[in-house]
Amino acid sequence: MTEHSAYSPSIVLIGAGNVATHLGRAFHEAGCRIRMVYSRTQESAKMLAENIGCPYTTDITSVDNEADIYIVSLKDSVLEDILPKLVECNRKALFVHTAGSVSIDIWKGLTDRYGVLYPMQTFSKQRKVDFENVHFFIEANSKEDTEILTRTASLISSHVFEASSEQRKYLHISAVFACNFANHMYSICEHLLSSHGLPFSAMLPLIDETAEKVHHLTPVSAQTGPAQRNDHNIMDNHLSMLNDEPEIAELYRLISKSIRKFQGNNK
Amino acid sequence: MTEHSAYSPSIVLIGAGNVATHLGRAFHEAGCRIRMVYSRTQESAKMLAENIGCPYTTDITSVDNEADIYIVSLKDSVLEDILPKLVECNRKALFVHTAGSVSIDIWKGLTDRYGVLYPMQTFSKQRKVDFENVHFFIEANSKEDTEILTRTASLISSHVFEASSEQRKYLHISAVFACNFANHMYSICEHLLSSHGLPFSAMLPLIDETAEKVHHLTPVSAQTGPAQRNDHNIMDNHLSMLNDEPEIAELYRLISKSIRKFQGNNK
Repeated sequence: MTEHSAYSPSIVLIGAGNVATHLGRAFHEAGCRIRMVYSRTQESAKMLAENIGCPYTTDITSVDNEADIYIVSLKDSVLEDILPKLVECNRKALFVHTAGSVSIDIWKGLTDRYGVLYPMQTFSKQRKVDFENVHFFIEANSKEDTEILTRTASLISSHVFEASSEQRKYLHISAVFACNFANHMYSICEHLLSSHGLPFSAMLPLIDETAEKVHHLTPVSAQTGPAQRNDHNIMDNHLSMLNDEPEIAELYRLISKSIRKFQGNNK
Repeated sequence: MTEHSAYSPSIVLIGAGNVATHLGRAFHEAGCRIRMVYSRTQESAKMLAENIGCPYTTDITSVDNEADIYIVSLKDSVLEDILPKLVECNRKALFVHTAGSVSIDIWKGLTDRYGVLYPMQTFSKQRKVDFENVHFFIEANSKEDTEILTRTASLISSHVFEASSEQRKYLHISAVFACNFANHMYSICEHLLSSHGLPFSAMLPLIDETAEKVHHLTPVSAQTGPAQRNDHNIMDNHLSMLNDEPEIAELYRLISKSIRKFQGNNK
């Protein structure tokens, strides 16, 4: 007699930061049993555990030993220290990390079943994520566990792909440009506007259209602006407006030069 | 007996590039009579004029002399040459340009009624613009013409604001960062992905969420990624991945440094 026929693995969350919090909630809402939260800091562990309604620990040697999958979302630099201790808790389970930039090989020699579950998205505590549209890139060291990870990620997303560690490295650095660096362009915009008493909200339709355009055109063909037109009058004026902000001026110069290069230098 | 009670000025378009084309079509669809299109190149003049169903000219001394408003959307560098010839065609009309970066003073001494009608948006020929959500910033040299420009822009947009030439300069440079430079981050992303056989379309949910987030959070608080976390491991790995692309590596370094500065250097 099976109470639930649907696939529903039990999960332990290792970490309680932005990624662990959003992933944990999503799997919880999808009906998975979250057996425990581990975090080095009691406050974060407690907050996420209470949110989900499960126990927590700050002691890596006391992590629950009955879960199907252990999902590790910790700062990359602590992984080498934590993982060897973590795998001791359950020698039969599947262990995965969620870092775009970390190779699957970090698990090699530590345990038998391991992989990567990389949700390519920008997570902030203050904002709920619609996982349905998040692209997941998965990798495992066996065909069976690749299948298990695909089914697991498919519980919360319709966009699940296999990707090698090498491909994932390039997905991650590309995402840094499209997300983190694009967002910093918004930050500089906000800084320039607020220095002159102008509201950032006026930019939102432009920001939205800029993002929407690349659904339909390649970014290079969607490019507009003074650098694209090679309009030196305007670029020189803009640089002189940035006299008091030499670092922003340097970015203006280099990005404009790079735009020229991408446009083929011949317009 | 008035046939049309609604406000509906007649317009001449000076220029037939992206801005003139999109604005011209929008005013035409809003019921304004477009009396003529002028462009230096016959092909562009003809294409836009046929699209709207009006005459065109390539001779600045033969421009229609009966319009209420002349809207100038030309490359900034040709304005000083063209405007003195253009105003001869109609001494009573209102003349405006659409350039974010050009002061209203470019009209000074040329004619009596003048101003600026700046639609802050990114225009590509291949893509229709929803003007309803475009922010227009207007300026005129009299209260009456400010009112006329407000009513005119309001025919096609719900977001019409007055802005001085000084404010508009900062709106324009800010838009270069939020739109043109953000788009170039997408271009670099696409370049890195396609060099490794990965599809740019996988990035679209991330790009959308990055734009959507700043509707709800300030860009600085929405910032995520290795530079925000000061994760030198990942940043060093990314820089070594860009060994063959020194210009992109330099952008990576400078933008990451600038993100650190905006985050307060203290995390």
